Amino acid sequence: MDSPSPRGIALVGFDADDTLWRSQDYFDDAQAQFERIISAYVDLQDVGRRLYAYEARNIAIFGYGVKGMALSMVEAAVEITEGRISAADIHRIVEIAKALLQHPVELLPGVRAAVEAVAAEFPVVLITKGDLFHQEAKVRQSGLSDLFRRIEIVSEKDPPTYARLLEEFAIAPAQFLMVGNSLRSDIAPVLALGGWGVHVPYHTTWAHEAQARVEAGGERMRTLQAIAALPQAVRDLAALAVAG
Amino acid sequence: MDSPSPRGIALVGFDADDTLWRSQDYFDDAQAQFERIISAYVDLQDVGRRLYAYEARNIAIFGYGVKGMALSMVEAAVEITEGRISAADIHRIVEIAKALLQHPVELLPGVRAAVEAVAAEFPVVLITKGDLFHQEAKVRQSGLSDLFRRIEIVSEKDPPTYARLLEEFAIAPAQFLMVGNSLRSDIAPVLALGGWGVHVPYHTTWAHEAQARVEAGGERMRTLQAIAALPQAVRDLAALAVAG
Repeated sequence: MDSPSPRGIALVGFDADDTLWRSQDYFDDAQAQFERIISAYVDLQDVGRRLYAYEARNIAIFGYGVKGMALSMVEAAVEITEGRISAADIHRIVEIAKALLQHPVELLPGVRAAVEAVAAEFPVVLITKGDLFHQEAKVRQSGLSDLFRRIEIVSEKDPPTYARLLEEFAIAPAQFLMVGNSLRSDIAPVLALGGWGVHVPYHTTWAHEAQARVEAGGERMRTLQAIAALPQAVRDLAALAVAG
Repeated sequence: MDSPSPRGIALVGFDADDTLWRSQDYFDDAQAQFERIISAYVDLQDVGRRLYAYEARNIAIFGYGVKGMALSMVEAAVEITEGRISAADIHRIVEIAKALLQHPVELLPGVRAAVEAVAAEFPVVLITKGDLFHQEAKVRQSGLSDLFRRIEIVSEKDPPTYARLLEEFAIAPAQFLMVGNSLRSDIAPVLALGGWGVHVPYHTTWAHEAQARVEAGGERMRTLQAIAALPQAVRDLAALAVAG
């Protein structure tokens, strides 16, 4: 990392899933497949909600990512069908997970140009949450990894995690700006530390990530409708950061 | 990291699973439970070998760790029983995974004293492979995390991974010594880069890790029967490193 300047933005972090490339769409599709499998056994309108209850309960054991989701699906399938689900249908759930882990990485429109423009003016790093193996594979396939000084894959995106990363980077929170689609994981914790945020909403959000609100620091945040506006938004916030 | 001295050992890395604490024993036990479940359906002597074939084939998709192993077990259970396995027994496989993810972290005898002694003389880091979420939980529970300057959890322990980490640490390979139980993951790749290794064999080794031999650099490696001998072995190799 460069030596931090006393004021201004010294480092820009990017989230990955649903900020740089499609992700939640694939999870939504996997859940729809799961619901179709289960609907052969039970007549329920709330299979999706019941699956989420298993996932939410198991996050403390499995963490985030496809493999934990698949194990939660297997468990939910057995319990929701009261043990009637066939081995063949269980196998289909494992196949859903394998497909999800191997889907192509599809950059969202305008992402490459926006990241390149920001990277031309600021050091940039990638900070993503979830399964180490799967995230590394997606970063490799994205073709963007050369733009980032560091790739950090973390198990949770909370204030202590960001504080630890910024200490490793030797950057004060007030010199750090994070770009991402999740208020809960990308924006709120960075604002809470005294940093800056650019929120780029995605058209669909996992129930878990939707649970968030910005408690403080809203004046250090911008919300964009399209990532094409990112370079100018970063410049604007950087000017505010210099002004203090 | 401290500035590297031009000669000598500037950083000592420690593996975690089966070097600092028990791990493979729990996996062996999980596999024995799996075999007992399957033995109710088929009369086979080689269930363990067949499970390993699924695991080895799926590593490219799932990576290492408990969750991928559990999904491989589910898949193997369906196929080995030709679809006859019950939903209740599938559920038991998910429960095996949950128990494995929550087993207590039990330090191996002499580990704390050995790590403390090495840490008193050299900067030490932890470098472990596998599931980010599970490894972080084990490091937290180990009570050792304060001894390490950095905790690095990686998806594969091969020469490119070690080269990337050493670059981040600003340490030349000839100044790095790695301590671990796996020739394949801890010792051979570091020797191949020109570094140093102390091999501390564990009483049981996963079939995957057993596939290794040291191709070159054996003169930069020591093998110990007990970790109590580690501090002196590190000192001896450090003296050789200074002598060049």
